[in-house]
Amino acid sequence: MNAVVPTVGLADIEAAAERIRGHAVETPLIESPALNDRTGLRVLLKCETLQRVGAFKFRGAYNRLVQLNDDERTRGVVAFSSGNHAQGVALAAKLLGIPAVIVMPDDAPSVKVEATKGYGADVRFYNRLSGKTREEIAAEIAQERGAVVVPAFDDPHIVAGQGTVGLEMLRQAHALGATLDVAVAPISGGGLLSGLATTVKAHSPQTAIVGVEPAQFSDTLQSLQKGERVTIKPTGRSYCDALESPFPGEITFPIMRRLVADVALVTDAEVADAMRYAFSTLKLVVEPGGAAGLAALLAGKVSTFGGTTVAIVLSGGNVDPEFFGRVIRGEA
Amino acid sequence: MNAVVPTVGLADIEAAAERIRGHAVETPLIESPALNDRTGLRVLLKCETLQRVGAFKFRGAYNRLVQLNDDERTRGVVAFSSGNHAQGVALAAKLLGIPAVIVMPDDAPSVKVEATKGYGADVRFYNRLSGKTREEIAAEIAQERGAVVVPAFDDPHIVAGQGTVGLEMLRQAHALGATLDVAVAPISGGGLLSGLATTVKAHSPQTAIVGVEPAQFSDTLQSLQKGERVTIKPTGRSYCDALESPFPGEITFPIMRRLVADVALVTDAEVADAMRYAFSTLKLVVEPGGAAGLAALLAGKVSTFGGTTVAIVLSGGNVDPEFFGRVIRGEA
Repeated sequence: MNAVVPTVGLADIEAAAERIRGHAVETPLIESPALNDRTGLRVLLKCETLQRVGAFKFRGAYNRLVQLNDDERTRGVVAFSSGNHAQGVALAAKLLGIPAVIVMPDDAPSVKVEATKGYGADVRFYNRLSGKTREEIAAEIAQERGAVVVPAFDDPHIVAGQGTVGLEMLRQAHALGATLDVAVAPISGGGLLSGLATTVKAHSPQTAIVGVEPAQFSDTLQSLQKGERVTIKPTGRSYCDALESPFPGEITFPIMRRLVADVALVTDAEVADAMRYAFSTLKLVVEPGGAAGLAALLAGKVSTFGGTTVAIVLSGGNVDPEFFGRVIRGEA
Repeated sequence: MNAVVPTVGLADIEAAAERIRGHAVETPLIESPALNDRTGLRVLLKCETLQRVGAFKFRGAYNRLVQLNDDERTRGVVAFSSGNHAQGVALAAKLLGIPAVIVMPDDAPSVKVEATKGYGADVRFYNRLSGKTREEIAAEIAQERGAVVVPAFDDPHIVAGQGTVGLEMLRQAHALGATLDVAVAPISGGGLLSGLATTVKAHSPQTAIVGVEPAQFSDTLQSLQKGERVTIKPTGRSYCDALESPFPGEITFPIMRRLVADVALVTDAEVADAMRYAFSTLKLVVEPGGAAGLAALLAGKVSTFGGTTVAIVLSGGNVDPEFFGRVIRGEA
């Protein structure tokens, strides 16, 4: 099959921004003098932790669902996700009056499962290691009901929605008198990073785009190095439950290949350090995957390409209290 | 003694705003659709947790210290505080190159003690229950060195500095298209609330000002009811270590008497609930005293006087990880 892979442009992202206006939160871009002192840089933090559902995922989900026609809305949607996309789709569906079935791994953080159920979604579980894959389960449900599958990242409307983070980031940085030398975001399937990169590069071509992956899930780095999409065989779990995609998306990969300057890998220990720093100094609750960019920065792994102003997306804050307690006490 | 008690006006607060500009953080005023849904109100949260030192106290401290003359700067400053004022004075002193001695209770949260030391201050401890009072110790040190005592709230420059929170809050609310029906802040000695009230009432006389105290430290409520400053005998500790003043200030009380519409009292359980809500839904780290306003709102204790738009100061986020972990796990 050689179907043309759709891409996403600035106009798509601007249209998405119009669609989500008044529904998504315009999250603050904050600056911490303490973090600036520590890094010797000017660091701006885009707090998607403060987005609806506690993660950027609401943007793409709402942008996708609001474009369904009446017939599709009646039949409903189905999505699979370890948590944040699940919540984004569940809340967007609730707001738009669309039935939603969400397929989640049975070891998803309970805080994410409960929130997804709380938005009224019908949650179905699967086991990561046995039985049908989540793709198979979702496809079955979709077929049964004629429901629309809402992918977590490999969908131009999803990418366009996530790209709205970049529009706000640029406008807010400008208001602070800052010109971005580097923009950093975590990578799972690449929806956020490819959307962000599209926006930022269109408005500010000199800004370097840097992605961050867990060391155990370096599929995007490997794919970029090889020049084609690589699927990795994970050797273990990562603290970053939100970043465990084993491959970059078909749509997102070509965008990242064209626009991303560097990918940093972070360890669980570095992620925990960043979560503790966010708790103790920034006073922000950040989940492991959401802290990946900050982790790379604090570990000295973000190349600044000679620049001094770095914007980082703190992409989510949905973390189980038990695990968070262990992290802040230094036990994880 | 019938010395005239100084008061604080809008011009003092505007001058303070000029002095702290570029030194203090202009903290965001955020809105959470989930919190709006839960309360049926429009709630705006002024995140002083994101201020330097993690609390609004930096504003007043910097405004006081920057006005010292060269001779006073050389002799240094001394302050007593359970934590946030300590950190505010310590950091302002460090930035201005002024030596600082801070007198702290020996049971102050270690996170506050360590931060105060981290800013280079000389920390001296006292015991809450025995020996000299902190006032006596501070007075001795001041006399010894010719140092200036920097009070935590009963000083017009401190009150003016804290009042800058209100200037930002009003401007930011306006930018969001919101008109404040109620503005809420916690009360310890009343520095924040009297400064906030002065600013808000000058620009927006129809906004009701509401203070919140821990139920065990209802000195301001009792004072307002009696029409004169009452000193209470605390019967126990509160989770709100930052709000344990046993009396309102000589300067702050007349301002609060004139401008405050209501005072709500919150229990430790309500404060813990608010901290958990801030963690799980807002993704913000808020210390017990900093969460008092939110606690009152969530407990249905904030009178809205028929209005629908409420701004609340989240005044600080300095909390020991051990205690925070217990709170979010529901064990405190």
